[in-house]
Amino acid sequence: YFNVHVNFISMQYFTQTQLWYNLQDLLPAKNGEEPTMQFLLEVVDILTNYIRKTFDRSTKVLDFHHPHQLLEGMEGFNLELSDQPESLEQILVDCRDTLKYGVRTGHPRFFNQLSTGLDIIGLAGEWLTSTANTNMFTYEIAPVFVLMEQLTLKKMREIIGWPNGEGDGLFSPGGAISNMYSVMIARYKYFPEVKTKGMSAAPRLVLFTSEHSHYSITKAGAALGFGKENGYVPLFVNATAGTTVYGAFDPINDIADICEKYNLWLHVDGAWGGGLLMSRRHRHKLSGVERANSVTWNPHKMMGVPLQCSAILVREKGILQGCNSMCAGYLFQPDKQYDVTYDTGDKAIQCGRHVDIFKFWLMWKAKGTVGFEQHIDRCLELSEYLYNKIKNRPGYEMVFQGEPQHTNVCFWYIPPSMRNMPDGEERRERLHKVAPKIKAMMMESGTTMVGYQPQGDKVNFFRMVISNHAATRSDIDFLIDEIERLGHDL
Amino acid sequence: YFNVHVNFISMQYFTQTQLWYNLQDLLPAKNGEEPTMQFLLEVVDILTNYIRKTFDRSTKVLDFHHPHQLLEGMEGFNLELSDQPESLEQILVDCRDTLKYGVRTGHPRFFNQLSTGLDIIGLAGEWLTSTANTNMFTYEIAPVFVLMEQLTLKKMREIIGWPNGEGDGLFSPGGAISNMYSVMIARYKYFPEVKTKGMSAAPRLVLFTSEHSHYSITKAGAALGFGKENGYVPLFVNATAGTTVYGAFDPINDIADICEKYNLWLHVDGAWGGGLLMSRRHRHKLSGVERANSVTWNPHKMMGVPLQCSAILVREKGILQGCNSMCAGYLFQPDKQYDVTYDTGDKAIQCGRHVDIFKFWLMWKAKGTVGFEQHIDRCLELSEYLYNKIKNRPGYEMVFQGEPQHTNVCFWYIPPSMRNMPDGEERRERLHKVAPKIKAMMMESGTTMVGYQPQGDKVNFFRMVISNHAATRSDIDFLIDEIERLGHDL
Repeated sequence: YFNVHVNFISMQYFTQTQLWYNLQDLLPAKNGEEPTMQFLLEVVDILTNYIRKTFDRSTKVLDFHHPHQLLEGMEGFNLELSDQPESLEQILVDCRDTLKYGVRTGHPRFFNQLSTGLDIIGLAGEWLTSTANTNMFTYEIAPVFVLMEQLTLKKMREIIGWPNGEGDGLFSPGGAISNMYSVMIARYKYFPEVKTKGMSAAPRLVLFTSEHSHYSITKAGAALGFGKENGYVPLFVNATAGTTVYGAFDPINDIADICEKYNLWLHVDGAWGGGLLMSRRHRHKLSGVERANSVTWNPHKMMGVPLQCSAILVREKGILQGCNSMCAGYLFQPDKQYDVTYDTGDKAIQCGRHVDIFKFWLMWKAKGTVGFEQHIDRCLELSEYLYNKIKNRPGYEMVFQGEPQHTNVCFWYIPPSMRNMPDGEERRERLHKVAPKIKAMMMESGTTMVGYQPQGDKVNFFRMVISNHAATRSDIDFLIDEIERLGHDL
Repeated sequence: YFNVHVNFISMQYFTQTQLWYNLQDLLPAKNGEEPTMQFLLEVVDILTNYIRKTFDRSTKVLDFHHPHQLLEGMEGFNLELSDQPESLEQILVDCRDTLKYGVRTGHPRFFNQLSTGLDIIGLAGEWLTSTANTNMFTYEIAPVFVLMEQLTLKKMREIIGWPNGEGDGLFSPGGAISNMYSVMIARYKYFPEVKTKGMSAAPRLVLFTSEHSHYSITKAGAALGFGKENGYVPLFVNATAGTTVYGAFDPINDIADICEKYNLWLHVDGAWGGGLLMSRRHRHKLSGVERANSVTWNPHKMMGVPLQCSAILVREKGILQGCNSMCAGYLFQPDKQYDVTYDTGDKAIQCGRHVDIFKFWLMWKAKGTVGFEQHIDRCLELSEYLYNKIKNRPGYEMVFQGEPQHTNVCFWYIPPSMRNMPDGEERRERLHKVAPKIKAMMMESGTTMVGYQPQGDKVNFFRMVISNHAATRSDIDFLIDEIERLGHDL
């Protein structure tokens, strides 16, 4: 392995490596081992350099370019595909440039989404997952991953509080699809004939959800043929545990009382707030979750698992299978030599299903349940720090009263020029433009990123969220300083 | 970096590494760079050893264990999650064991699914994708990936034959979801009011698809509220380009004539067969595809891209957006500083969407269009070799007459003890058990894997498919030898 090592060491000192081989030399080529290992180590070198810099606060969060700039082609980086192959050297340059012009979502000052951070164990899990390159539909080709999924879902159901962790579930490609599952199985529960006879076999049904709930509930309603009209037969209630913008928790017990009284399906969308179940200090905010019929919970949000990792958990065993099974003979042969109840693919609306479990399982092994608890508690402490820092600070107004329930801190920054303006349409209009302007400047200077949006009759405000293990009080201080630096003269 | 290198070299010789640090020493810990790099290099060492062995024919395809065996715990490998953390050394052991008890889908003798192989460039692309750990919903946090997706989809539409590659599309989490999109947008096209008013706003609609088409079309029908009854208003026709079992191509032009006459939506499910569009020799099998309204095409099948990579392509621009948009204010702010038409998230039924494009884009760069063509042609030649080898060989019966259109070769192996049996129920019953028995023995010996299933009135038969770049004629010969070795005495 002499060549590999010499080259690996040399990579620390040269950005541009000279390769002595081509694509055709890589595996499965004869004697392809050495070129393959060298190529992969060069890629790993690019990735580890990226990781190092991501955690280094002197590195920018992003190097912003407009779409037309990237499309016109940056020096040496051309996005267009062509008929003829590129050299492997160019492929390495493409890898470096792809990262260079991207956004460092693991950077301690990236606060832009609910999913942030770069967990090293989770990352190792993803690298392994892609190397294993298999599919969740059968035990036959994913024995270990299928069992890991089963055990992890059971653990999650125990944490929800369902007796003995009984029930069912799946990892799905994101919270929107998990929420869609909940609507599908609720419909199947009350009107199973819809599966074969269509929506005309049921009365006109409606779903209840709050205005602040995630748009995926409405999207699922539209997709599944419910529409969004009022006045028909109630079927399903969504209670949100951690709304997207405010981080608010619906009172699950109160909603469960109503659902029990009227025999409605209760879904808890804990895509964002589900993680708080891991914390003895904060899980009371989801009190009553054990009364839900189904729960969405995205470990890729508050628990810092790499994207994508979302679970739909169901109290009633067998209903996912009943709702979705089509018994495809070429995949789910009943006459296999092993216990085919482990072939979970027919429960899903997907056929092929990506392995989303391993990184999560590995993180759980490495951190233990207590490690997730510490992570959650730490993020909520940080957001409390932010809230206390700005609630009475000149130039800040909070969007909602009281302490945030989750890590969401929603606020307006009022530039000095506006601080004495009387309330009214003119002030609203000006304030509406402040957050977008500051955000644009942030992105152009590349120093930090935080989201903003209007909500109902409230003009654009910042929504700060914290889910990144790497963030500290100093990063919160930096964000506030940066908002003031960029917004001071607006 | 002295420690890193010494340790890296040593890893070649020791399976079990002594680590001098803990989880808490990894980034974002202070001075966490070196432990992080060392840990990741140890993981990479495990992965590259796995890759080497995957391409080595003396390695088994799998080391089969029953679910209860793995659940009871193999030596040193315990799937259960616990409250307390494991050591990083144990985490590395877990990684090794996860791969050890899995299935090598990249092995040259793994023929079990439509998705096989381990493309080194695609793998590098996945490692980078997970390191970037971002989300496709906005240009804001995935600028490069959003543009790559746009350019690649355009290229695919050009190859389909839509004028100037105009139209729309998305990468979705698999062919079943891509097919579901096609049904949703067809419904939206003819009955847009279903989006807000539900299925009761439309007449009772039906979808047409062949018996051999993929079950995901029926699944989509059930999910979206169509059911599967006959006798109502036709809306949508699915033509399959490459059926799952036989690899058969529906006559798209004939079907398109009917769809045009009756104003029906024409979808082509080319999840499996779409790859043949890359081959000048084979693309005639999809003749007429340019007349489709929508096309599913999974690069993760015939084109050897790692899982998952599936595209839904749509001829009419804007309809995906019209069908699915819900205009969530917190993500799709209209007042951003860049051209927000690049925020593609609202077209999707997902909210967060995994980056499936990069590995595909990188492979296209590395191979060129011609590289994919060579790959397709090579796989089809191999299946022709298999077909010619067995069509007149004693002990084999072909399931359908004539040359296969795709790489699917479907056949019965008749053990010597059955070769003189008269046709009839007894023979059918015995033959039905042959493929499952041989398959079980294959899995237990771990030498190769190939799928089987019944179809209609045909008892269990083998379905051989080839999509793996690493497979050669010698592997085909091996499969046939192995079937005969294992099945000889049945």
